[in-house]
Amino acid sequence: MPGLGDATRGRILYGGDYNPEQWPEETWHEDVRLMRQAGVTTVTLGVFSWARIEPRPGERDFGWLDRVMDLMHEAGIGVVLATPTASPPPWMGHLHPDTLPRDEEGRTEWWGGRQHFSHSSATYRRYAAAITEDLAARYAGHPALTLWHINNEYCTYDWGDEAAARFRDWLRARHETLDALNAAWGTAFWSQGYGDWAEVMPPRHPHYLKNPTQVLDFKRFTSDMLLECYTAERDIVRRHTPHLPVTTNFMPLWAGQDAWRWAEEEDVVSVDLYPDPRDPFGAQEGALVQDMTRSQARGPWMLMEQAAGAVNWRGVNHPKPRGLNRLWSLQAVARGADAVCYFQWRQSRQGAEKFHSGMVSHAGERGRTYQEVTRLGADLARISPHVAGTHGTAGVAVLHDWNSWWAGDQEARPSHEVDHPGMLRAWHRALWQAHLTTDFAHPEHDLSGYPLVVVPQLYLLTDAAVDNLLAYVRGGGTLVCGFLTGVADEDDRVRPGGMDARLRDLFGIRTLHEWWPLDAGETVACEGFRGALWSEELEADGTADATTPYRGGELDGLPAVLRKGRAWYVSTLPEPGALRDLLTRIAADAGVRPVLDGLPDQVEAVRRGDLLFLLNHGREPVAVDLPGPHHDLLTGTDVTGRVTLERHGAAVLRP
Amino acid sequence: MPGLGDATRGRILYGGDYNPEQWPEETWHEDVRLMRQAGVTTVTLGVFSWARIEPRPGERDFGWLDRVMDLMHEAGIGVVLATPTASPPPWMGHLHPDTLPRDEEGRTEWWGGRQHFSHSSATYRRYAAAITEDLAARYAGHPALTLWHINNEYCTYDWGDEAAARFRDWLRARHETLDALNAAWGTAFWSQGYGDWAEVMPPRHPHYLKNPTQVLDFKRFTSDMLLECYTAERDIVRRHTPHLPVTTNFMPLWAGQDAWRWAEEEDVVSVDLYPDPRDPFGAQEGALVQDMTRSQARGPWMLMEQAAGAVNWRGVNHPKPRGLNRLWSLQAVARGADAVCYFQWRQSRQGAEKFHSGMVSHAGERGRTYQEVTRLGADLARISPHVAGTHGTAGVAVLHDWNSWWAGDQEARPSHEVDHPGMLRAWHRALWQAHLTTDFAHPEHDLSGYPLVVVPQLYLLTDAAVDNLLAYVRGGGTLVCGFLTGVADEDDRVRPGGMDARLRDLFGIRTLHEWWPLDAGETVACEGFRGALWSEELEADGTADATTPYRGGELDGLPAVLRKGRAWYVSTLPEPGALRDLLTRIAADAGVRPVLDGLPDQVEAVRRGDLLFLLNHGREPVAVDLPGPHHDLLTGTDVTGRVTLERHGAAVLRP
Amino acid sequence: MPGLGDATRGRILYGGDYNPEQWPEETWHEDVRLMRQAGVTTVTLGVFSWARIEPRPGERDFGWLDRVMDLMHEAGIGVVLATPTASPPPWMGHLHPDTLPRDEEGRTEWWGGRQHFSHSSATYRRYAAAITEDLAARYAGHPALTLWHINNEYCTYDWGDEAAARFRDWLRARHETLDALNAAWGTAFWSQGYGDWAEVMPPRHPHYLKNPTQVLDFKRFTSDMLLECYTAERDIVRRHTPHLPVTTNFMPLWAGQDAWRWAEEEDVVSVDLYPDPRDPFGAQEGALVQDMTRSQARGPWMLMEQAAGAVNWRGVNHPKPRGLNRLWSLQAVARGADAVCYFQWRQSRQGAEKFHSGMVSHAGERGRTYQEVTRLGADLARISPHVAGTHGTAGVAVLHDWNSWWAGDQEARPSHEVDHPGMLRAWHRALWQAHLTTDFAHPEHDLSGYPLVVVPQLYLLTDAAVDNLLAYVRGGGTLVCGFLTGVADEDDRVRPGGMDARLRDLFGIRTLHEWWPLDAGETVACEGFRGALWSEELEADGTADATTPYRGGELDGLPAVLRKGRAWYVSTLPEPGALRDLLTRIAADAGVRPVLDGLPDQVEAVRRGDLLFLLNHGREPVAVDLPGPHHDLLTGTDVTGRVTLERHGAAVLRP
Repeated sequence: MPGLGDATRGRILYGGDYNPEQWPEETWHEDVRLMRQAGVTTVTLGVFSWARIEPRPGERDFGWLDRVMDLMHEAGIGVVLATPTASPPPWMGHLHPDTLPRDEEGRTEWWGGRQHFSHSSATYRRYAAAITEDLAARYAGHPALTLWHINNEYCTYDWGDEAAARFRDWLRARHETLDALNAAWGTAFWSQGYGDWAEVMPPRHPHYLKNPTQVLDFKRFTSDMLLECYTAERDIVRRHTPHLPVTTNFMPLWAGQDAWRWAEEEDVVSVDLYPDPRDPFGAQEGALVQDMTRSQARGPWMLMEQAAGAVNWRGVNHPKPRGLNRLWSLQAVARGADAVCYFQWRQSRQGAEKFHSGMVSHAGERGRTYQEVTRLGADLARISPHVAGTHGTAGVAVLHDWNSWWAGDQEARPSHEVDHPGMLRAWHRALWQAHLTTDFAHPEHDLSGYPLVVVPQLYLLTDAAVDNLLAYVRGGGTLVCGFLTGVADEDDRVRPGGMDARLRDLFGIRTLHEWWPLDAGETVACEGFRGALWSEELEADGTADATTPYRGGELDGLPAVLRKGRAWYVSTLPEPGALRDLLTRIAADAGVRPVLDGLPDQVEAVRRGDLLFLLNHGREPVAVDLPGPHHDLLTGTDVTGRVTLERHGAAVLRP
Repeated sequence: MPGLGDATRGRILYGGDYNPEQWPEETWHEDVRLMRQAGVTTVTLGVFSWARIEPRPGERDFGWLDRVMDLMHEAGIGVVLATPTASPPPWMGHLHPDTLPRDEEGRTEWWGGRQHFSHSSATYRRYAAAITEDLAARYAGHPALTLWHINNEYCTYDWGDEAAARFRDWLRARHETLDALNAAWGTAFWSQGYGDWAEVMPPRHPHYLKNPTQVLDFKRFTSDMLLECYTAERDIVRRHTPHLPVTTNFMPLWAGQDAWRWAEEEDVVSVDLYPDPRDPFGAQEGALVQDMTRSQARGPWMLMEQAAGAVNWRGVNHPKPRGLNRLWSLQAVARGADAVCYFQWRQSRQGAEKFHSGMVSHAGERGRTYQEVTRLGADLARISPHVAGTHGTAGVAVLHDWNSWWAGDQEARPSHEVDHPGMLRAWHRALWQAHLTTDFAHPEHDLSGYPLVVVPQLYLLTDAAVDNLLAYVRGGGTLVCGFLTGVADEDDRVRPGGMDARLRDLFGIRTLHEWWPLDAGETVACEGFRGALWSEELEADGTADATTPYRGGELDGLPAVLRKGRAWYVSTLPEPGALRDLLTRIAADAGVRPVLDGLPDQVEAVRRGDLLFLLNHGREPVAVDLPGPHHDLLTGTDVTGRVTLERHGAAVLRP
Repeated sequence: MPGLGDATRGRILYGGDYNPEQWPEETWHEDVRLMRQAGVTTVTLGVFSWARIEPRPGERDFGWLDRVMDLMHEAGIGVVLATPTASPPPWMGHLHPDTLPRDEEGRTEWWGGRQHFSHSSATYRRYAAAITEDLAARYAGHPALTLWHINNEYCTYDWGDEAAARFRDWLRARHETLDALNAAWGTAFWSQGYGDWAEVMPPRHPHYLKNPTQVLDFKRFTSDMLLECYTAERDIVRRHTPHLPVTTNFMPLWAGQDAWRWAEEEDVVSVDLYPDPRDPFGAQEGALVQDMTRSQARGPWMLMEQAAGAVNWRGVNHPKPRGLNRLWSLQAVARGADAVCYFQWRQSRQGAEKFHSGMVSHAGERGRTYQEVTRLGADLARISPHVAGTHGTAGVAVLHDWNSWWAGDQEARPSHEVDHPGMLRAWHRALWQAHLTTDFAHPEHDLSGYPLVVVPQLYLLTDAAVDNLLAYVRGGGTLVCGFLTGVADEDDRVRPGGMDARLRDLFGIRTLHEWWPLDAGETVACEGFRGALWSEELEADGTADATTPYRGGELDGLPAVLRKGRAWYVSTLPEPGALRDLLTRIAADAGVRPVLDGLPDQVEAVRRGDLLFLLNHGREPVAVDLPGPHHDLLTGTDVTGRVTLERHGAAVLRP
């Protein structure tokens, strides 16, 4: 199968979404000049171009795209070609209202924005296949083409009637019989027993709480329907260009797609990444997404979209201060990206995203944004040969599963203060601050290569996942589990005792009497630290090797943290420093060391291949002590003993 | 007519909702063992069992219920049998979309939750009557059956077309002529005059503010339609079992039902009660609901549902700390409950309420929850013979009326900081903190038995209610009225002068110039205390015996509190301590004493029959001085002089 | 053309909305007595009387209105007669559902409130024309009639199908071709290209962000449709009474109508004004609306509605403290009003606005409200001959344009903390606090009469507007521009460089690198003051005469304020005192002086004709030094040297 290497050909791709249809042709030539000047090597064409290519049903206008493709080829710039199916032309909704999604309250999602297509609409899928077929046929042999990009940020739901029919098909395939569905959904409660498949519906607006397993299956269904849309188009382009890789771009840590499953269907895993420049933990947000994307890709991956400056969809949209775009781009490379791309090349003058920055901002060539983009292009060109295609290594795996997220996110639950991504972020942050490089893994993946496995929270664990965790510990691995893990089975059935019995045994827990969720802002005292969000009334079974107790309050003396051999259970969220220190100690015991010792807090260190990336997230310069002499690929200078990083500066060091 | 005594037969009922259809039959036998061990004497069956009993339209499957009924009978456990009509099976909405309610914006409430039935649907009512008929016929002679439970927490609205037709019927019955309706609704304003009954609609989503009397009548209509649903089923079961009492469970202090009217149609008044264990005034919330329910029942009542631990529908759901379930249960008994029941017996593993606690929690028999449930069962068995069927007495009546609540809650009103239940709570709290036992009463009830009547706020007062209050004071009663009382008549017509003229005269008010509502968090200085929420620019007529003035600000020197004979008017909400002290003084003048003198703040004292209940709401032990020797029924020991209550402890003392 | 003078006939009109249909006829006579006692000279009849006049389709009942008109005439009270078309009778929606608007999510706006008419409905317009025709024919010759009032507070939107058809007509008229529409809307982005007019829709609920130019055109369309409704009725009444002026009442600073365009179609400009009595800047809010209305009227205008006390639509509705109604009414006169009117004469007892105050409150004749209304009536009678018809003068014009407001208010924009009316208020406040009298003007108006022009923010500027500003400065004018000005062209296309190039040149800006919007509550240090809401990364071109730099942070040393000749650019919002001082200095340089020097902060001074109004907004008395002897028309006394104003007091001084 083709992969990212077939597109990169040994160099880091650099570029972005290019929407020449928004500009007069004279601007295209100016664009090429500026692209070359900035070191751009790749552009993504065709996203949202459907109405241009098919202005009326069945018509085709490829002429303009031919010209752009040729222009790119002449300029030596590779093309990522997108199928335009994320935004059907107005005629589609007008002629075929069945292609428009309905929300859970029955409201239509109209054209006039984007992504107003029903994943379940046969009509939509037919049109999408046809345009994909013609696009692939036309450009299969074009020399500029390097990678296919299917659709864009798949993210639609549909509660309408055609989706309902597809949902029933999907449920039949999953549960086979109505009896099995009734059992899985627990329909004996609240008189929800289904006597006929025709009665089964998407979870539409009810009088009171929805059935949570119905909602869970609807989320699975939605991810699968979108995936069907993807694979249908992928299979078409693959037929035309079996030698070229195919991707679709994920939104970072987004609830709608089970990206573990999706990644298996992609030749290249790509993601869009937009941390807030004003978020004090923006760099860690980036690291998390990068680690997860790399883990899904099992190697180099593609940063399909980032912003050169501000985005347009926050309440207040801050620009990137000088140096930040470069720093965060190098961070992506450090964490495995072989492509650094933007939405978009040239900032729009019109439309809903005209206040989203571009590589060429409204200020144009003279603007700071483009100047910094150009500097970064030169940097990437310099380090590219040493980096592209190389892998990093991580001693820690953090477990994440969309099914668990979906199930845990139900309406009526112990605490709305606790959420899956929040727990992922909190635990990843502790590891990131401890300079421990992390992969992400699915709970049923082979974990044996990792000395340490961390489970921030997996509310839902399949039997196979429980087996896997137990086998991992039996095999010598060290496991740290946060609270609310192993509560439910695959159908969101609470396991007897409120937590899987084998897991309780693993940690030395006899009885989980009660959960004691904490209010927003409340903390609970434990021996040596304070916990937030959660606490538990646990009764140990006497087999644990050590416990850290709660202190004071209703849980005084009960275990907050249990350790039994290499298995740890943490029944609260320790304050950040305490969690970092706890994980540092456990990691050390498991033989996992930080990337570098003695690093200043503001410096991130990552190894990729034989290179050491140092990233200064601070606004002040900082000096870092190095273990021996290195060569800095960015400056071309040798450094020994210590290296000084400017504000938002970076070093890419070869030993 | 049968009553609660026919179900209790002299002992306090103890048990809860039992949903065996969620569990395999082997669990049923385990359940019986645990029930007997816990002292359970009653279970409620059949709530939400419609789809199980009638899996397809017209079919019946009673076999499983026969077996459960028999099993309960063999175990000596009485059965409260519910009609299953609160949650129609999926086939009903599928085959009969006319049974689904529409909200005010036209959105359908779909099946997949519960209570997705239109109270106005003839189809729904026909099916409900049929299943009720068959259920009653089948179990009329079953020896386990002790009480009928109709539906569950009636609480649905419907703005749809069939409801619109029923609304018109209801309005015809109320107003007789269109002219009368136009007059009552004040349709001369904003060009709303109706020329044909067909034009009259439920108050659907408008461009701007709704007609408040239309909304008021719609709330009355909704309560009446739900009541029709109830009485239709009640009459069916009563025909089969004239000797057995009938109830339906209220939600506590819920806006949707005029419970004064409903209670008249019930043989047993029952309520569901779920104070937040973390609410510092949770115990007072309980006392309020218990006082109101007892007043509606005019004697012993049934606590149909409470939680043994956490609920599942708050943002953060806290468990009950050790002892709290027992304490709050004994509080209900102290305030007149002859039945202490839970939702539900065994905590669900599936569905929307699986995180709502049960008497048997996910932790099972070993869990703290079940252990405490068992202790309470023994306590209740011990005090039961001395308590069941006895009455308490209260010297204070607090007036409450749903019509006033409904009318006062209109969109465009003087202040959204002021709300009816908030005022009830604030005034009841002051009385509760003063250890003054309170009944609730409707403003048209005979009040002559109460030395003191308190009106926190009755925005709407009928002419008859005003007559009643005046007669009460003339008859020697002491009346304390909060602000915004007597503003509107039965049709929400503002009375001339902004407050009923006879009431103004009663208090010595010449002119109510202006209301001065306060902003959130704002207070106003009065002589000796600060007031919140409200103040008034009042001009006294010189006949008042005493006034307490405002101090400073725009109202400096104007009367904040007026007293004229035994009639008091309080034009602000005094801070809690001031209101407590004021009511204590007025009560003393009226000859109403606290239950005990010198009680610590954290201790609640209630008399029922000849028993004195002492309840320690504090987390620390506390000693209470007693007036003479007593026998503590809970411990079986004699106490003299003083009794010490453990943390969350209680004593049930016989002199 | 007739004007306000034809209605006032040399005296200030005093009165309010009168809705006798809400009251029995005996009350009408009481009303007349109280009106005369209060000095009322005018009432507005017929607003919301449609159902009364046309109780069934095509019927007419004018008898009651005849009697009221006659009664008014006998009492010497003039009548402003309203067409009743703001609230169709229930029969209309019932018989003609096509007259009901749909919101952007497809929900119907039902009758039961008011303004439930679609501006695009041919049926509605037909009925509205018919009732207007008959009303005008009947009362054309009535001696009481002085002014026509069309509809009331036009403010409805409609996303329904008939509106969609009208929107397409409107777009055809504006853009002529689909190509032009596609170009204007930038439909090349997101695949929104329209191939057929039938595909074009109002901006209905999309999956993601709407097209901002589609939204902008929809707002223009809405304003124009409403204007069509207005002019259709105006033309009818004008045909019957060419000698009488016509108005419709604006809501103050409301987004829905381009009041510059509307004012051109009115003989009298009138407005409704409801500052919050508790708003510390309520008086300035009043001044702003009054200045804007006077500018739209180009002379005397009509205060159609204000509240004598509280309104009913805020969360907490505060009454007016003693004196405030009089003070704010005199302020309106000072700023050009020749009519001081209220909603409404007698406070309603029923309906959605019964808690909105009236000139006669619920407390009636004895109430403070009516007493103060009566005092004011006498005051107005006293000053009326000296004031009515006179004009004020302003040295400063503040520019405002609805198109810019509409465009700037788009969903995805740099900062949601920044909004057009907020900027207007902040800049007007600084001028008001500096005692500089201001007009408002449209950016394409002739500005040459103003020494100083202030642009708080004009995000959208047409080419003609830019021309106008440049010509103004070239002609010797002084221009001060706030940030986010000149960003977009008429179709919301961002101008190259992010700000019009000629404007950049005017201020000496080479490159606008980035906008740096600030978070809520955040400030940025500048030389000598702190700025809020916004900052900019600007590169000066070296031609500016002076700049004030940012200090510290990312923008350290870059220009915050630039001055080049008489053109100033302010790239942040200076803190209030700094903005006031800056504008005072610039005004002084431009030869514009405060109304009086040395005024206390709490005193507002305004000149109208040869009169000087002094208004004490403070709660304490204050003394004001006067330039020479004056005669106070309110007290009839001569004052020299200084005058003392009571709390909320006023003086109207003739030199």
